[in-house]
Amino acid sequence: MPDVDIFGDGFYKDKKILITGGLGFIGSNLAERLVDLNSKVIILDALLPMYGGNLFNIENIKDKVRFVKGDIRDKELVLNLVEGVDIIFNLAAQVSYIDSLNIPYDDLDINCRGHLNIFEACKERNRNAKVIFSSSRLVYGKITKNPVDEEHQTRPLSLYAAHKLAVERYCQIYQDAYSINTVVFRITNPYGIRQQMKHSKYSILGWFLRLAMENRTIKIYGDGKQLRDYIFIEDIVNAFLRAGVSENTNGQIFNLGYGRSIAFNEMIKLIVEIVGSGSYEYVDWPDNYERVETGDFQTDISKIKRYLDWEPKVSIGDGIRRTYEYYRKFRQYYWE
Amino acid sequence: MPDVDIFGDGFYKDKKILITGGLGFIGSNLAERLVDLNSKVIILDALLPMYGGNLFNIENIKDKVRFVKGDIRDKELVLNLVEGVDIIFNLAAQVSYIDSLNIPYDDLDINCRGHLNIFEACKERNRNAKVIFSSSRLVYGKITKNPVDEEHQTRPLSLYAAHKLAVERYCQIYQDAYSINTVVFRITNPYGIRQQMKHSKYSILGWFLRLAMENRTIKIYGDGKQLRDYIFIEDIVNAFLRAGVSENTNGQIFNLGYGRSIAFNEMIKLIVEIVGSGSYEYVDWPDNYERVETGDFQTDISKIKRYLDWEPKVSIGDGIRRTYEYYRKFRQYYWE
Repeated sequence: MPDVDIFGDGFYKDKKILITGGLGFIGSNLAERLVDLNSKVIILDALLPMYGGNLFNIENIKDKVRFVKGDIRDKELVLNLVEGVDIIFNLAAQVSYIDSLNIPYDDLDINCRGHLNIFEACKERNRNAKVIFSSSRLVYGKITKNPVDEEHQTRPLSLYAAHKLAVERYCQIYQDAYSINTVVFRITNPYGIRQQMKHSKYSILGWFLRLAMENRTIKIYGDGKQLRDYIFIEDIVNAFLRAGVSENTNGQIFNLGYGRSIAFNEMIKLIVEIVGSGSYEYVDWPDNYERVETGDFQTDISKIKRYLDWEPKVSIGDGIRRTYEYYRKFRQYYWE
Repeated sequence: MPDVDIFGDGFYKDKKILITGGLGFIGSNLAERLVDLNSKVIILDALLPMYGGNLFNIENIKDKVRFVKGDIRDKELVLNLVEGVDIIFNLAAQVSYIDSLNIPYDDLDINCRGHLNIFEACKERNRNAKVIFSSSRLVYGKITKNPVDEEHQTRPLSLYAAHKLAVERYCQIYQDAYSINTVVFRITNPYGIRQQMKHSKYSILGWFLRLAMENRTIKIYGDGKQLRDYIFIEDIVNAFLRAGVSENTNGQIFNLGYGRSIAFNEMIKLIVEIVGSGSYEYVDWPDNYERVETGDFQTDISKIKRYLDWEPKVSIGDGIRRTYEYYRKFRQYYWE
């Protein structure tokens, strides 16, 4: 298991860890690693149908974790769950920035009020918990300067991103007011095993992989030259685990990306080549996509490297190959 | 009535105007001017006890406006009220940044969900309404560069300011997605007649004026040298009215301040001098204030001057004098 060495001192052994959204993409991969490291893992997940929660994601570890079906919007439940935990990986979310304008109240309720519940519960019951929050590169909005570092202006173009930014501020405010330690990761474009594959509304890479596996045609909007930074799940999990260990991350915000971008059409060509089926064609931008298009995105990851002694290790080719292998084996649990 | 000339073409005549929070400080002053300009004014106000809503504020115009006691959180009510209106001055709010951490759910519910209601109602019933929103200089957080222009980083230090910033993004998002015209004002430190005087939790200038009128001692935290920009209500009202007329303000964010700052202790000396009673003393910062202290604040108002051909006209001395005269006459309606 890569990158496990730094935790060889047993930091995570017997630590009590709460993962909200723990049946989802990042949460379930984190849970598996934490079980390996002998943590006591509690998974909270509401299994909302449109999102990434999937019981199959914890098939390998289901007897070694405690799963609570429930929602971060349930204040009483959250109050009880935070008691005595050492770290909260706080990943529960409405996850589609595209949908957020169609379901504005749900986005506000889950992505803001749910997270207020976490912080208020920590304030009331457990100020020693460290809260690690998954934000998004989308908080930057339109990119004015590449590569994007953490000082770049933040002008969200979607309700999803506006609410992510609000919760970033909650992290800072509860840290300052109540000494609840927090870390924020602005994740670029995450991909990899255990991500939902039901629809195209998050992880465009995953969706294209599915289209290729189904021998369908992938549509490339515009000229396909827009740059994106794709980060593989294993690298994300390592960053989260390191943030949990490190004291000097408290109150910090980090970009979490691969640090090198590739063009949209290059990513698609790689998928088609690796999968060995599917094709692509160029089409015009539809109206509703163009409005929230951020422009090219290249990530400056020097801050996270410096603070966490972390670097991404999985190239996009390897990442796509590993993701493809996973869904070839387990496709039935993710679609159809 | 100053500054009325530019509306001499009758722009506001017979216009249907909805003012949320219209019994409050800014709302009621706006309402009075709009009645003068022969607009059809609807005031929505929930008269929540801690805030600035006060029926006496519309004493002079009560027979010339329609007052609806209700809350922007009431979606059905808001849906009905937005129909057919030309301009919405959207001022309803939980208004204390200090309280926001004590009542986090109320702040979220009023200051975010209530405003989603306004935008969703416009989307469903009236996309031609123009929405003018009162945000705050507090969205900037810690000041890194003075004078502060609209490009300054935004890192709110309170839930109040985090939610104001979220609604600023709502303005942009609904403008882009549904062509609902919006204007955002980031108001500095507003003061003047009809502001609530019940407690110190907003408008520190108003509170000090009351202390001086009661011949009490005003506490100056630290050395009293922190710079603030105080803007008189009449100048605020003129800016709001101009924004309603102007087409080129759509989608814009403006600082709304006096453009020159004075030290805290100079402001207090002016108050004591003008009122002719009261005194002051220097004391240490209490813990909970220091955390949200933004540092010196000087406002760059070149953008609003350029777009609106507006400039502030009331000096702080004149503003304090006029405010004092008002409360000397009407004190009984504001405290005691």
